[in-house]
Amino acid sequence: MSKQSKDYKARAQELVSQMTLEEKALLLSGNGAWTTHPIARLGIPSIFMTDGPHGLRKAQGLNISESVPATCFPTASSLASTWNTELIQQVGAAMARECQANDVQLLLGPGINMKRSPLGGRNFEYFSEDPLLAGQLAASYIQGVQSEGVGTSLKHFAVNNQEFERMVNDSNLDERTLREIYLPAFEIAITQAQPWSVMCAYNKVNGVYASENPLLLEQILRKEWEFEGFVVSDWGAVHDRVKGVLAGLHLEMPGSGDVNRKKIIEAVNAGQLPVSRLDEVVGALLAVVLKASESRRSGARADLEQHHVLARQVAGESIVLLKNEDHLLPVDVGGKKKIALIGAFAKDPRYQGAGSSQVNPTRISNAYDELVALVGGSERIGYASGYDSEGVTTAQLLDEARQQAKDADVAIVFAGLPDSHESEGFDRASLDIPEGHNRLIDAVSQVQPNTVVVLMNGSAITLPWVGRVKAILEAWLTGQAGGGAIADILTGKVNPSAKLAETFPQRLEDTPTATEFPGLNQQAYYGEGVFIGYRYYDKKNITPLFPFGFGLSYTTFAYSDLTLGAQSIKDTDSLTVQLKVKNTGKVAGKEIVQLYIREDRPVVSRPDKELKAFTKVALEPGQEKTVTFTLKRRDFAYYDTTHHRWTVNPGRFDILVGGSSRDLPLRKHVQVETTQVPVPKLTRESMVKEFKNHPKGKAFYPQLKNVIMGSFEEPTPVKRTPREEYARKKAEMSTLVFVNDMPAYKLIAFSEGKFTEQMLNDILAQVQ
Amino acid sequence: MSKQSKDYKARAQELVSQMTLEEKALLLSGNGAWTTHPIARLGIPSIFMTDGPHGLRKAQGLNISESVPATCFPTASSLASTWNTELIQQVGAAMARECQANDVQLLLGPGINMKRSPLGGRNFEYFSEDPLLAGQLAASYIQGVQSEGVGTSLKHFAVNNQEFERMVNDSNLDERTLREIYLPAFEIAITQAQPWSVMCAYNKVNGVYASENPLLLEQILRKEWEFEGFVVSDWGAVHDRVKGVLAGLHLEMPGSGDVNRKKIIEAVNAGQLPVSRLDEVVGALLAVVLKASESRRSGARADLEQHHVLARQVAGESIVLLKNEDHLLPVDVGGKKKIALIGAFAKDPRYQGAGSSQVNPTRISNAYDELVALVGGSERIGYASGYDSEGVTTAQLLDEARQQAKDADVAIVFAGLPDSHESEGFDRASLDIPEGHNRLIDAVSQVQPNTVVVLMNGSAITLPWVGRVKAILEAWLTGQAGGGAIADILTGKVNPSAKLAETFPQRLEDTPTATEFPGLNQQAYYGEGVFIGYRYYDKKNITPLFPFGFGLSYTTFAYSDLTLGAQSIKDTDSLTVQLKVKNTGKVAGKEIVQLYIREDRPVVSRPDKELKAFTKVALEPGQEKTVTFTLKRRDFAYYDTTHHRWTVNPGRFDILVGGSSRDLPLRKHVQVETTQVPVPKLTRESMVKEFKNHPKGKAFYPQLKNVIMGSFEEPTPVKRTPREEYARKKAEMSTLVFVNDMPAYKLIAFSEGKFTEQMLNDILAQVQ
Repeated sequence: MSKQSKDYKARAQELVSQMTLEEKALLLSGNGAWTTHPIARLGIPSIFMTDGPHGLRKAQGLNISESVPATCFPTASSLASTWNTELIQQVGAAMARECQANDVQLLLGPGINMKRSPLGGRNFEYFSEDPLLAGQLAASYIQGVQSEGVGTSLKHFAVNNQEFERMVNDSNLDERTLREIYLPAFEIAITQAQPWSVMCAYNKVNGVYASENPLLLEQILRKEWEFEGFVVSDWGAVHDRVKGVLAGLHLEMPGSGDVNRKKIIEAVNAGQLPVSRLDEVVGALLAVVLKASESRRSGARADLEQHHVLARQVAGESIVLLKNEDHLLPVDVGGKKKIALIGAFAKDPRYQGAGSSQVNPTRISNAYDELVALVGGSERIGYASGYDSEGVTTAQLLDEARQQAKDADVAIVFAGLPDSHESEGFDRASLDIPEGHNRLIDAVSQVQPNTVVVLMNGSAITLPWVGRVKAILEAWLTGQAGGGAIADILTGKVNPSAKLAETFPQRLEDTPTATEFPGLNQQAYYGEGVFIGYRYYDKKNITPLFPFGFGLSYTTFAYSDLTLGAQSIKDTDSLTVQLKVKNTGKVAGKEIVQLYIREDRPVVSRPDKELKAFTKVALEPGQEKTVTFTLKRRDFAYYDTTHHRWTVNPGRFDILVGGSSRDLPLRKHVQVETTQVPVPKLTRESMVKEFKNHPKGKAFYPQLKNVIMGSFEEPTPVKRTPREEYARKKAEMSTLVFVNDMPAYKLIAFSEGKFTEQMLNDILAQVQ
Repeated sequence: MSKQSKDYKARAQELVSQMTLEEKALLLSGNGAWTTHPIARLGIPSIFMTDGPHGLRKAQGLNISESVPATCFPTASSLASTWNTELIQQVGAAMARECQANDVQLLLGPGINMKRSPLGGRNFEYFSEDPLLAGQLAASYIQGVQSEGVGTSLKHFAVNNQEFERMVNDSNLDERTLREIYLPAFEIAITQAQPWSVMCAYNKVNGVYASENPLLLEQILRKEWEFEGFVVSDWGAVHDRVKGVLAGLHLEMPGSGDVNRKKIIEAVNAGQLPVSRLDEVVGALLAVVLKASESRRSGARADLEQHHVLARQVAGESIVLLKNEDHLLPVDVGGKKKIALIGAFAKDPRYQGAGSSQVNPTRISNAYDELVALVGGSERIGYASGYDSEGVTTAQLLDEARQQAKDADVAIVFAGLPDSHESEGFDRASLDIPEGHNRLIDAVSQVQPNTVVVLMNGSAITLPWVGRVKAILEAWLTGQAGGGAIADILTGKVNPSAKLAETFPQRLEDTPTATEFPGLNQQAYYGEGVFIGYRYYDKKNITPLFPFGFGLSYTTFAYSDLTLGAQSIKDTDSLTVQLKVKNTGKVAGKEIVQLYIREDRPVVSRPDKELKAFTKVALEPGQEKTVTFTLKRRDFAYYDTTHHRWTVNPGRFDILVGGSSRDLPLRKHVQVETTQVPVPKLTRESMVKEFKNHPKGKAFYPQLKNVIMGSFEEPTPVKRTPREEYARKKAEMSTLVFVNDMPAYKLIAFSEGKFTEQMLNDILAQVQ
């Protein structure tokens, strides 16, 4: 804990000691929609929170349609595709400066829930299907925002992976999946960047609302990860306010007037809520309120012009080049080529999602205007709208588009998802873009061999025409400066350097949750376990349309010279990994280098490989750089549900390095030795085989086993035919399996009490 | 309830009234391993139970290796492949006659758990991946056994789909999956055939042990399905005996001496277990004990010779012809062809599984001897063992096999799973047969174009050489008379008429549970939901190697003239379906006609189609028969988790008929009208949208909605730019989704108490 944090904490404690019960309860619920309660008597200020995560949305009430103008940056799907932690940090800092200029103390973001299904309605607000990538990008975002004295709220904690009935849905998942997939992004962001707050999710997790979940809020967040800030409810996530306080939910938002305040007071008076607990919770919240308030920069102004430039830069670095046959891109605008821009998104782009993240942009750029500006006039730029705002096309619109396409040297079709298809609040029904968009692309590509498709959407989609167009750009939801960024990429002013942070499947049936997403009867079962995203496609041996980590460039890169710091290590050692990457093409570019680990013989069902490190390297033509990664114990570990801890299984691990999850040309392996072998606690419920494998328990294994296996003992040899002998052996094998799987306490009844409760207790006493 | 049952029940009640507490407790636990306690004072007899399900295994103690000789019938995988309810009934009756001859009153079977994964270690003891098929076959089995005055125990109730740590595993699944997939086979068997007992499973279901699960044992089994018999624990399944009695577990097996008896007595004395409940439980058990005992046929003898003949007949009807290129089969044994039998299974067959079902057969036939007998001598029959008992081959064994294959006109390779690969107690690790078997088949098929493979295994396997052999017979675990049955099929004495009761996938990765079976940390999550077996392959659009319901014949069949009794029906009506099926080949044969239903526009994620009826039709060459099916309400219904009942969604349903789940040439559709529209109960937890869709609630919907949507109301018109207007509409849409999904009680806090608890209560009072 930093010294400053300690100071705030001490001052908060001092203030809490002076507060009345009513004042404490008052502080724990918002003052209206966006602020905390001030308490004038004690000089306690109020702080203002606003939605993010890709821009400031400072509204006055709960009506989310009107807010102060702010720079609309690309949404999280875009940001993640940059894989550029520094750039995301800059975005965070810029948003924070806009917060300061608008007297906002806390920005509600980033959102880092895992993309369990590409249908998730809010995927556009989340980073990735991979916890490491999401966690590291979130840490950068948080560091960026908080570097300017504005707080963040990391959301939505936790296992909030669908919009359908999100306020009542129960996310059911096993402990290992929770620990390996749904928590690590939070863990990384919190331990690396200490967000001032964490926002709890609407849903239940294994039957308990996230807003009153002691395992999540107290045990994991505060104790294991040492989170120092406060937990705020997602707006309306409070279910039972008193349980929430007990579990570690500090602030209820929006304010509930005296509705829940009364319940807190009553609970304290009835002895159901200890004052000491209330004080802890109030104190933690107050410490951040003090820090946030004192981090105010009164009179601060934000350079919106410069932020628009930054938004364009980020958008440019987030556009993924998915296909580029015959080097169709970039389009040479210096020549005399005629370009047809087709599709209404070219002039009226879809650049952000719907819901609480809806920013009121300071301006909006579109690809048409920006291209005209780059080319220096509209003479060689044709346009046809192609479809209406819902994506519906007509024969006439298609004819116009065909005409424009025919008349040009290259046709660029803008397509994707209209607003009505993708929003907070509901999940998508299909992976498809509107039929009108697909028909438009087909129509254009039939008359124009040089067709480029530019996609605007917040989550993976299907591309039925993928084989019939030469080039595809996934532009995501670009933010307000996307028009310029797309123009930059199309013309080669910017070389694409983004890679997919989520798998593009070939079809909906191939996705991990195809059979049952989003669940029924308010129950979602995470039956795919740890196998989401590329982990699933690898495990099921399904070829995706475009794999995780994939993205092309206008140049090419070569990987070489992988070296490991050691051939074998202890799990307490670090392992240094080095390799070279070279720009082998003719233009400058940036390559995202990815390192995956595969365990050779895992004891549990593990993914074929998992991302453990990445970096983005800028290279001039012909330039080569050495990349160094350091791997630690956790990178090799799996979450061991027997011992409820991260465990490294000794053995061989493959280190795979390359430019996408399915293009990993560099491979070496390391032997890892386990130094910390956990010893499980044996109980009466432990299975007999657990005694066998336990350092102290194994001495008692014969005794336990023979309670039943004793029936196979023969004091005098018995003569048998070979068939009888075989039948006996087969039966003995089956019985031994039966005995080994039996919980120890069952031996008592099974032996009719010959093996006694006392005998079991004696054994248990000796194995602790 | 039959008059006889009532009599037993009345007599049991009379006896219970005379029993002491100690005597009641005594009766509820076994007298040793296989019998109930007699109570001489009251003339209460003891009954003897023995393992099934494919033959009698009467042992004395818990050592399962020695038991009286009994006919070993084919295991359940085989029986199910016959799709022949009459034949299974005959098998049941035969086994029951052997029970009577051995003074056994109750046979522990049939096993009808769903084959969730082909890796399930006990799949060979279960019928199918389809609940209808499993249920109807189980009903026939039970009717057969009980027709001879011997009881059955339908097992394992419920959701017992893996062997791995089965005594502690918790099967987590949603209500609809439970009702639509894992319970219906039990429901069909119980309501159609009233087994004298049901055996509860070892595992937990949604956190509660099946042996103490009131939902399963009391609510569903006894109340909904009106089960009249007793529930017996799987051997060692008791966890908390008193909870078991409260929930409806009658008999603990094996006996626990005084261990649990004492606990029952203590619980009664402590007032934790009402005497009235104890009496109910004892009475139900006693009624069956009386019936079973009085159904004894002293001095009964079984015709073991005739049973062996029946076992051969059943095995012949269970062998599935998977492939038969160039009509290689049947082999013409009248000519001078030389036949090479290759693989040790030809002489030493794998004919049953391991574990509690291990029968001590009266004799064992093998294919080699039987073929020699049919051909009339061994001159033209070659043999090479090819592999050892573990399936390991050697260069020498392969050479011998090649030599035999080369010298013959046709080579028949026997392969499959050795005992050590498949047993009760553990799940398979892979779908593959031993490498030695695969190498043997490859070696033989390389030198002999006319290669037939005969498979012996209890569950689906992979066939990597499927394209390299001309004919394949899936013989399953044939029971003791399998050698003769295989010879019958190979030579055409019997025409194959079996079809797969389980899908053969192309590879393990394609199976529904490929990512996480059998679960970790004692938790299995049934994330694939209702999509198991063919329902999964259909939904995921994965082509199986051989689909559910598939099987060839030595003749061919043509389907025609599908007619429906009506074009539209009410859901309370029956629908008659007729069609014609004709033998268009040259030999007599039997065709399994299958009817599937597909809902055109379901409101929940339903399987593409589901089996709803089937029949097996015997046809002489050229003969045509009309098949009639009757469909009822339940055939169209899905389990509606909102109202906890079976609901028919009105609309169009396709009726598909044909010879396999992927060969359904006859198709018509019917419109179904719903007559019973359930009205849900609205509560404070109901979402606002539930009020909107409720006949009484809808009047209050505007009031509820406007608690939040009111913020969008504008007393005076506001001038906006088109962009502002668009942003507002988008925000309004998002907010409406938010409000609709909100549980009603949350409006109170969200409105800061302006919408009051009292207002909500008033509304709730008016909508009941």
